[in-house]
Amino acid sequence: MEAEAAVDYLVDERSKAQFDIDAMKIIWAGGKHEFEVSDRMARLVASDPVFRKDNRAILDRKELFKNTLRKAAHAWKRIIELRLSEQEASKLRFFVDEPAYTDLHWGMFIPVIKGQGTEEQRKKWLPMAYRMQIIGCYAQTELGHGSNVQGLETTATFDPELDEFVIHSPTLTSSKWWPGGLGRASTHAVVFARLITDGKDHGINGFIVQLRSLDDHLPLPGIIIGDIGMKFGNGAYNTMDNGFLRFDHVRIPRDQMLMRVKQVTREGKVVQSDVPWQLLYGTMVYVRQTIVADASCALSRAVCIATRYSAVRRQFGSQNGHETQVIDYRTQQSRLFPLLASAYAFRFVGEWLKWLYMDVTQRLQARDFSTLPEAHACTAGLKSLTTSVTADAIEECRKLCGGHGYLCSSGLPELFAVYVPACTYEGDNIVLLLQVARFLMKTVSQLGSGERPVGTTTYLLRLEHLLQCPCDVQGAEDWLKPDVVVQLFEARSARMTVACAKSLSKFSKPEDGFMDLSADLVSVATAHCQLIVVSKFVEKLQQDIPGEGVKQQLEALCSIYALSLLKKHLGDFLSTSCITSKQASLANDVLRSLYSQVRPNAIALVDAFNYTDHFLGSVLGRYDGNVYPKLYEEALKDPLNESVVPDGYHEYLQPVLKQRLRTARL
Amino acid sequence: MEAEAAVDYLVDERSKAQFDIDAMKIIWAGGKHEFEVSDRMARLVASDPVFRKDNRAILDRKELFKNTLRKAAHAWKRIIELRLSEQEASKLRFFVDEPAYTDLHWGMFIPVIKGQGTEEQRKKWLPMAYRMQIIGCYAQTELGHGSNVQGLETTATFDPELDEFVIHSPTLTSSKWWPGGLGRASTHAVVFARLITDGKDHGINGFIVQLRSLDDHLPLPGIIIGDIGMKFGNGAYNTMDNGFLRFDHVRIPRDQMLMRVKQVTREGKVVQSDVPWQLLYGTMVYVRQTIVADASCALSRAVCIATRYSAVRRQFGSQNGHETQVIDYRTQQSRLFPLLASAYAFRFVGEWLKWLYMDVTQRLQARDFSTLPEAHACTAGLKSLTTSVTADAIEECRKLCGGHGYLCSSGLPELFAVYVPACTYEGDNIVLLLQVARFLMKTVSQLGSGERPVGTTTYLLRLEHLLQCPCDVQGAEDWLKPDVVVQLFEARSARMTVACAKSLSKFSKPEDGFMDLSADLVSVATAHCQLIVVSKFVEKLQQDIPGEGVKQQLEALCSIYALSLLKKHLGDFLSTSCITSKQASLANDVLRSLYSQVRPNAIALVDAFNYTDHFLGSVLGRYDGNVYPKLYEEALKDPLNESVVPDGYHEYLQPVLKQRLRTARL
Ligand SMILES: Cc1cc2nc3c(=O)[nH]c(=O)nc-3n(C[C@H](O)[C@H](O)[C@H](O)COP(=O)(O)OP(=O)(O)OC[C@H]3O[C@@H](n4cnc5c(N)ncnc54)[C@H](O)[C@@H]3O)c2cc1C
Ligand SMILES: Cc1cc2nc3c(=O)[nH]c(=O)nc-3n(C[C@H](O)[C@H](O)[C@H](O)COP(=O)(O)OP(=O)(O)OC[C@H]3O[C@@H](n4cnc5c(N)ncnc54)[C@H](O)[C@@H]3O)c2cc1C
Ligand SMILES: [Ca+2]
Repeated sequence: MEAEAAVDYLVDERSKAQFDIDAMKIIWAGGKHEFEVSDRMARLVASDPVFRKDNRAILDRKELFKNTLRKAAHAWKRIIELRLSEQEASKLRFFVDEPAYTDLHWGMFIPVIKGQGTEEQRKKWLPMAYRMQIIGCYAQTELGHGSNVQGLETTATFDPELDEFVIHSPTLTSSKWWPGGLGRASTHAVVFARLITDGKDHGINGFIVQLRSLDDHLPLPGIIIGDIGMKFGNGAYNTMDNGFLRFDHVRIPRDQMLMRVKQVTREGKVVQSDVPWQLLYGTMVYVRQTIVADASCALSRAVCIATRYSAVRRQFGSQNGHETQVIDYRTQQSRLFPLLASAYAFRFVGEWLKWLYMDVTQRLQARDFSTLPEAHACTAGLKSLTTSVTADAIEECRKLCGGHGYLCSSGLPELFAVYVPACTYEGDNIVLLLQVARFLMKTVSQLGSGERPVGTTTYLLRLEHLLQCPCDVQGAEDWLKPDVVVQLFEARSARMTVACAKSLSKFSKPEDGFMDLSADLVSVATAHCQLIVVSKFVEKLQQDIPGEGVKQQLEALCSIYALSLLKKHLGDFLSTSCITSKQASLANDVLRSLYSQVRPNAIALVDAFNYTDHFLGSVLGRYDGNVYPKLYEEALKDPLNESVVPDGYHEYLQPVLKQRLRTARL
Repeated sequence: MEAEAAVDYLVDERSKAQFDIDAMKIIWAGGKHEFEVSDRMARLVASDPVFRKDNRAILDRKELFKNTLRKAAHAWKRIIELRLSEQEASKLRFFVDEPAYTDLHWGMFIPVIKGQGTEEQRKKWLPMAYRMQIIGCYAQTELGHGSNVQGLETTATFDPELDEFVIHSPTLTSSKWWPGGLGRASTHAVVFARLITDGKDHGINGFIVQLRSLDDHLPLPGIIIGDIGMKFGNGAYNTMDNGFLRFDHVRIPRDQMLMRVKQVTREGKVVQSDVPWQLLYGTMVYVRQTIVADASCALSRAVCIATRYSAVRRQFGSQNGHETQVIDYRTQQSRLFPLLASAYAFRFVGEWLKWLYMDVTQRLQARDFSTLPEAHACTAGLKSLTTSVTADAIEECRKLCGGHGYLCSSGLPELFAVYVPACTYEGDNIVLLLQVARFLMKTVSQLGSGERPVGTTTYLLRLEHLLQCPCDVQGAEDWLKPDVVVQLFEARSARMTVACAKSLSKFSKPEDGFMDLSADLVSVATAHCQLIVVSKFVEKLQQDIPGEGVKQQLEALCSIYALSLLKKHLGDFLSTSCITSKQASLANDVLRSLYSQVRPNAIALVDAFNYTDHFLGSVLGRYDGNVYPKLYEEALKDPLNESVVPDGYHEYLQPVLKQRLRTARL
């Protein structure tokens, strides 16, 4: 639809591209079919006035929330009317681009019942959930406990007399706090609570609890629910009713405990089912894999806005009579292009994680648990890496837009505010990296024994070699060789891992070592995760990549991704003697020439994301580059512009100006 | 006032402190008198219900703005009633803690007239401004030009017939865009425009222009004004009417051109006055020095919140029956304590900048311009360094608070949103660093000639030595020696500067070199600025520091500041052979032991900022640590909690749940 715009201030930029952009669009989307579905759903949403979102910054909390309820209902109506497939429906919701209770219903409530419910439970609850006759959320976190799930305080005590569980919040800090969709929309929740039978604590388990009457939506007896209040930013997560929830001895039937793995019998005995508990990890791998995919979306969106605006914005200097486009400044390039490269890198590692999830699922079904710890560490680490980078990158893109990036109409403030909690939910990023580090330490410590490292840790089999191999870079061109770069990242990660393991071994209690060295352990985990992303990018490029010039562009981006990481973490590479200062300096030169190579293709590389102006939601990122008149249009919509003399003038400005404050009523 | 709190969950923490906190408060405030004024004004504001600010997140734009007008009027009333001194008044406004038109009136409009107006102009305009009979703003930036002030498009054409200037906006992009206070409050502006006489363009100059009638506040003929719309965050800068402004041939008398340096005669001739143009730099040094001081305030505020909450929050593990306070995790310390150290570092460098400003002013009056370029580079660089670090640090502090940091009631989202534009206004941080780098390149290139480097660049006189001196660290304890550390930072900066200068010399056109190497030039400038901060911290500690244990704490913080920078920029230090990997590893060990040393003092070190709960505006940062019940209290105030069944249920939820969407009107 953008093609029909009257003006295109970026037409020159587009004509400079040296690759087949349609082919790149398909690579980005992950296939022809995916592209087609995405494209169709994006247009469907963009063309429907109910889904407009340019007014979010000026709606107050109640208006905002009501409007989100409206969009969710309308989306559901369209999904039904158009008989959309599950894939289409999920894409449609994605392009509506507004956190809503439906995210948790489809993204957590249903998957958890699928993953942790017995067949009977799935049969009972899923059809209602699929039809949205009930709306569910995921109530795990409490006021006092988030990261430490084992410390949750809510209790579910079995009452053998009535064959029921009593769900109770014994303390203030045991209140559920944060669950999305809980505050106002949900009728049901999966509540995580301590399972207690016969006075004994059996740890945390999930329970399906009805929260509100299906007649009038009022909370059921013994249930206190509310919204936890305003969150970061305009619009953003304030469209969501993150809620609190307290139970006063609420009773539910025994069969509402999720019993796929652990069961409570009629007599109150806790028995393990024959389903391996490791199955629960499957859900986690699934959810985190979607978070990595979302990271590449959010990052590419910010990069698209900053790249287009950097080509429109001119400041200083002169290029044939005009001032210089700020995208031509090396500082701008060195901040922006590594983020562009990261967007592609995360896309491909996300694609690979999707495969990993399927692989894990199949193995689990075959009771092969051998790859599970590695898959778990790998998804935890990549969730942490990609969300941290993306959060910082969105803000960097905002700064790259100068003053105008600070306006809500640039779209970047809201993108930042809505994105940053991804660093915290589904596992605090630091806590996750510590898990990865533990896994790595265990893996190296077992290298001598029979345990063979698998998957992304296989490189540790070549530990001896990696600990002493010199870096093969003689001339600048060597930095473009994928195998040289991958081996270098392997060597860095291996050497850091071993150095840390050595330091740990000096502690008499290993736990003390873990505590004391945890900051270094985080660096080790980061190095390992960056290696994974680099490797998966390189592997992707070993596949057949159709389209003129497409592969060359991706190769340049892959090099930029790796070399900019090298530059950023130079201390790691030098202190482990993986490279010399001379080689580092060559890498820096190569990076500059790669920026020059990417520069003419920059606009086309962000066009390849195929984002509609609706989805981007940014005046600065408009496809047609017609930025300045549109900034004005947006400004004029502000309520403060309704009157020339502001509300409050007579009470609070005139008395100041007229020196009549003494008598003024303020 | 906090001393009267009923509970103090942090009392144990406070009892652990190993230094005289009252003495530290005075060091932080910059003297006994400064402490007393600050303390008194903070309490005055905190105890006045008009200044409440806990409701900002839920006010809509018009309510928010009106409320700010009210606070500004009330503050002014109190200032008059209590006959506050200029220092007291400015502190009072500071503690009101809400961007308002008064910031620009007092902070830009008045200083510019003082700096750029003739004596006559100052006599005419300043008394009115001091009494607030007029309200002024600073209208420089346009839609199309911010960083490049020389590119501004607004014209001020002299009409010799009527002895007037005609102010005009010839294009859409020439609209003034961004000035604070312009949109709704200001009656006057200093407008920067191209001075044109007799068809000739004489560059940019300031003009005092009346914008609104003093009778009814309506814009004068030919003047179009409005607000530029919503900006990042809840509350935050949305209390400010950043505005746009277009002129349609607006006439002003000739004597409203600011003529201290350049004058237009009755005949339309442009003449330089005998006042040196360098005087204009004085204003810039002044404004940027205040920005550095503000950085230490914003940073210390975020650190105070995160530190207190980290001591309250417990998660995992166990410490005598309780879970571990998250502040005891090394990862938390390694993220938090360098920021605590930076807060102190920025405080002291800000103090020094205040001295520098006075020194520059005195020299200017004596027509000694010798230190001006250095002072200018130094303030530009420190503005850039401190604001960039502070912006990132606030967000890091938010993340350190886990999920609860994402709530507006944590205070951190708004602090971030209101702070980040400091990286952009008064000079984009990257553009400023490039200026510093140019200055450094010039300084080294002139080393051979007669020009002696002055002030913060004096170390370059020892260039030969610094280029080859080895680092004097043998054992861990050597890392605590201030002279060792300072020389190391000098060596790093000197070596990077020379390396860059060498690379530049290879270009046939120097400008091409500057363009191509600009990313490296930014790193050079950063290294130089970090050296300044480290040196000034060390110099501060060479002064007499009264109070038991105070000096020891500050020494530990100084070491943490320097060594955490070393760790972060390890690549710089290793690639220039300033240190060996072995020494780096020792530095890392020392850092850990410094964290242990600071840990028991952490709460007292943030108490020393003497912030009231009102100013902090954070449930998580409360002095008494009583976090959880207060989170609840804040949540309950959200408008969404007014009814148990949300507005929108009947229209948009019930039809979904009851499968009646087909007939629903959405
Ligand atoms: C927008 C949003 C939506 C959410 N949605 C849901 C939802 O739908 N359902 C739900 O149940 N929950 C939800 N949550 C809650 C979320 O899952 C938790 O906030 C998250 O698990 C982090 O836990 P926490 O807040 O307790 O952080 P904390 O654990 O308190 O973290 C505080 C600090 O302590 C550090 N720390 C903690 N433990 C350790 C350790 N062992 N070692 C080192 N450092 C440590 C952390 O790194 C962090 O810096 C949501 C949160 C947000 C912000
Ligand atoms: C909250 C707020 C309040 C403000 N208040 C006022 C006010 O009261 N009065 C007023 O007049 N103005 C005000 N401004 C405007 C502010 O001064 C400008 O936004 C600022 O000068 C930056 O200019 P810009 O927006 O044109 O950025 P741009 O120059 O457009 O920057 C865009 C990008 O280009 C890069 N860039 C630009 N030039 C170069 C170069 N030569 N080399 C390398 N990179 C370059 C920048 O680094 C940045 O990444 C305010 C702005 C904000 C956000
Ligand atoms: Ca309203």
